[in-house]
Amino acid sequence: MLDKKYFKAFQNIVGKENIFDDKAHMIAYSYDATRERYEPDAVLFPKDEFDVSNILKYCNENQIVITPRGAGSGFTGGALPANGGIVLAFEKHMNKILEIDTKNMLAIVQPGVVNMDLQRHVEELGLFYPPDPASEQYSTLGGNVSENAGGMRAAKYGITKDYVMALRAVLANGDVIRAGKRTIKDVAGYNVAGILTASEGTLAVITEITLKLLPKPKYASSYMAVFPSVEHAMNAVFKSLSAGANPVAMEFIDALSVRAIKEKLGVELPEDAGALLIGDVDGNVKEEVAFQIETLQKSFEENGCYTFDVAQEKEKREKIWYARRNVSQCVTVYGSKKLNEDISVPRSKLPEALNKIYKVGEKYGFNVPCFGHAGDGNIHVNVMVDGSNPKQLENGHKAIEEVFQLVVDMGGTLSGEHGIGLSKAPFMEIAFNKAELTLFKSLKKAFDPNNILNPGKMGL
Amino acid sequence: MLDKKYFKAFQNIVGKENIFDDKAHMIAYSYDATRERYEPDAVLFPKDEFDVSNILKYCNENQIVITPRGAGSGFTGGALPANGGIVLAFEKHMNKILEIDTKNMLAIVQPGVVNMDLQRHVEELGLFYPPDPASEQYSTLGGNVSENAGGMRAAKYGITKDYVMALRAVLANGDVIRAGKRTIKDVAGYNVAGILTASEGTLAVITEITLKLLPKPKYASSYMAVFPSVEHAMNAVFKSLSAGANPVAMEFIDALSVRAIKEKLGVELPEDAGALLIGDVDGNVKEEVAFQIETLQKSFEENGCYTFDVAQEKEKREKIWYARRNVSQCVTVYGSKKLNEDISVPRSKLPEALNKIYKVGEKYGFNVPCFGHAGDGNIHVNVMVDGSNPKQLENGHKAIEEVFQLVVDMGGTLSGEHGIGLSKAPFMEIAFNKAELTLFKSLKKAFDPNNILNPGKMGL
Repeated sequence: MLDKKYFKAFQNIVGKENIFDDKAHMIAYSYDATRERYEPDAVLFPKDEFDVSNILKYCNENQIVITPRGAGSGFTGGALPANGGIVLAFEKHMNKILEIDTKNMLAIVQPGVVNMDLQRHVEELGLFYPPDPASEQYSTLGGNVSENAGGMRAAKYGITKDYVMALRAVLANGDVIRAGKRTIKDVAGYNVAGILTASEGTLAVITEITLKLLPKPKYASSYMAVFPSVEHAMNAVFKSLSAGANPVAMEFIDALSVRAIKEKLGVELPEDAGALLIGDVDGNVKEEVAFQIETLQKSFEENGCYTFDVAQEKEKREKIWYARRNVSQCVTVYGSKKLNEDISVPRSKLPEALNKIYKVGEKYGFNVPCFGHAGDGNIHVNVMVDGSNPKQLENGHKAIEEVFQLVVDMGGTLSGEHGIGLSKAPFMEIAFNKAELTLFKSLKKAFDPNNILNPGKMGL
Repeated sequence: MLDKKYFKAFQNIVGKENIFDDKAHMIAYSYDATRERYEPDAVLFPKDEFDVSNILKYCNENQIVITPRGAGSGFTGGALPANGGIVLAFEKHMNKILEIDTKNMLAIVQPGVVNMDLQRHVEELGLFYPPDPASEQYSTLGGNVSENAGGMRAAKYGITKDYVMALRAVLANGDVIRAGKRTIKDVAGYNVAGILTASEGTLAVITEITLKLLPKPKYASSYMAVFPSVEHAMNAVFKSLSAGANPVAMEFIDALSVRAIKEKLGVELPEDAGALLIGDVDGNVKEEVAFQIETLQKSFEENGCYTFDVAQEKEKREKIWYARRNVSQCVTVYGSKKLNEDISVPRSKLPEALNKIYKVGEKYGFNVPCFGHAGDGNIHVNVMVDGSNPKQLENGHKAIEEVFQLVVDMGGTLSGEHGIGLSKAPFMEIAFNKAELTLFKSLKKAFDPNNILNPGKMGL
């Protein structure tokens, strides 16, 4: 519980209607997509940047820890108040699209804006905000920037960091900083916007985000290719890309996942599908779309694909995407608990990586269905265990650790999208050497000397 | 002069053949494109990362300052040993392309590799490294990353930071760190590669760079449009881009610059040219190139362009580019000394910014020919003065300061490409508030507590 003196001070800053410490609120703000639970001592809904500044200044002076929170849809506990203190929530007031600057093709938003709301808004103006995390319907742009969210379209369009032009943020001591500009180029001063992106709320509280927009491409098609094996499909991925294909998305579903989709949804998929590749291509002219489809088809067929389907009409395109969109919920046929990790490897290492990941599963006797963003080397690995069996859970976590080790040994990363948060903090030493970990600590200290901002995350 | 004890210690690290303190070397390593001169106490040519680590460790223990140096082609003094000490030069040993990974479309290079050598090498393999600073024939990739170099192709393809996937670097204490991976996505740990890029050698010494490559587009055309005035041209810039055009380059030459080119080179250009826009478009299919040309032409004509020429053949394309490539040397018809700044504003502010910049010139009685990368809002402003006239020089610098102030007031930046270095350090307070400047100092301290790395640059 928050000391009464503190509670009153926060009331004076945000107003009585914007601070809560009742049980219902404490529960509502205690969890995220990890299903771990940590209750905060209070939840504050700042009205504006000035409130955020006053809150942080007070917290810094009184050593009160703060967890900034978007939609709480993260997979690694980044928004969990693991050390109590206050949660800063932006969905009540700081949730506005402040400006769409069509002349300079950028959007200025507050951190509480939901990703899809921005996408819809700019598309009505013929513009395009590409980052599309699976959580796009509910996750917020503040969370997206803090976690550097990816998505299906990353293969062609990159990830959140590629769209952050500028940020406003409040430092731990309450000082307001601006980082970056509404300009394409800016090389004055250190790239502070760059380091705040993906910093998981540990360095500063982001209060305003300037995002680059693109012109909306005029044409698009979807494709689905069936391969005899994961190895064939994974070879097709990197070979088609180095042959010049530039698909918007290139998503992958392995044989176990295909079986799960058939079983759970009754979707018609080829009997002998060892793996699927599903995706989109786009362009300003039809011929570019045709070029992309031809390049993919040629390369896929050279790598053993059985069938290659293309769809242009919305309905047919959605049919192609149906399997991919529902795979995550279907794999639970293999176990009540899914230990879900989002490793990433250089694309050419995908065949080898999957092969080794399956072997880890075999060793422990688990099914490990895999799917995800093959086009950028980012694979969701799902170790399926019986959640009620402690031995299986323990072995599941051992399997995950082995997966991390083999991925890092191949030049890959612990996380392509989800971040480190609490869940992956124990594995930081697999990925980083002592000098790198020490540097992270020094950076944390440079921004937040009293360690009040989201302490415990990223192992800091 | 370096203490003999230090000289001997460095000799032991790099070998006698890789350390110099003779006058010829001291002069050769004393300048860059600013024409300011500061002699170092010694120049070292490290053989490898191990040497760099040992050098830095020794310097850190003995408070010897270090200036890492690429080709010395910078415009703001980033490579000048302003406080003496040692220069670390990479052109002798650490100048190798280590790997072109065609499967994952990336290149791994040492810092001393010349930009154009990489471009040529990857283009032979059907790949493409877009960042093309004007210095591409001699500037090194280590320098490009340290300064976050831009170039003509930034309008479509972005700048150096958009291609840095991973770095290896040596910290001030000699520790070696890796930042980033050979993966498209990596959200584990702080974005250290992001903050090292553009840090002007003040945070660490970069020893290896992993750069993203693209497939080389198959088709390209060049265009040149003549406008009655700068205002018409600048409106055409942002209106064509927000109408969906995505040119590789969109370069701008103003009326004064056009006159200079005619006078100095005898190039045929329209009599009444108030401004030119020159650039390239590209694509995988001819129809995409045609679409880009049509979009530009339509928008340019709506904004008053007189003539719009297109060229596909190499020779004709080079003719179009001739004026732009030679403009920088031609403007010296207006004064013996060019005070050259590379400001950047949001593109929609270009007409207003140029208007105000010319007014500053008028106020002081200087010609201020402007040209540059209009497609990304980055303009080279040239205040032309008589270099032998101290009063003119003084007024020229006053004019520059007024330009910086008006640019920052419009949401622009002190530098789109050249960096801060020594030259722009006095203007940091125009662009950054106290909290931001304090944060830069804290970051510097987190990386380099003894301030041995390129001290004095960026005002740090």
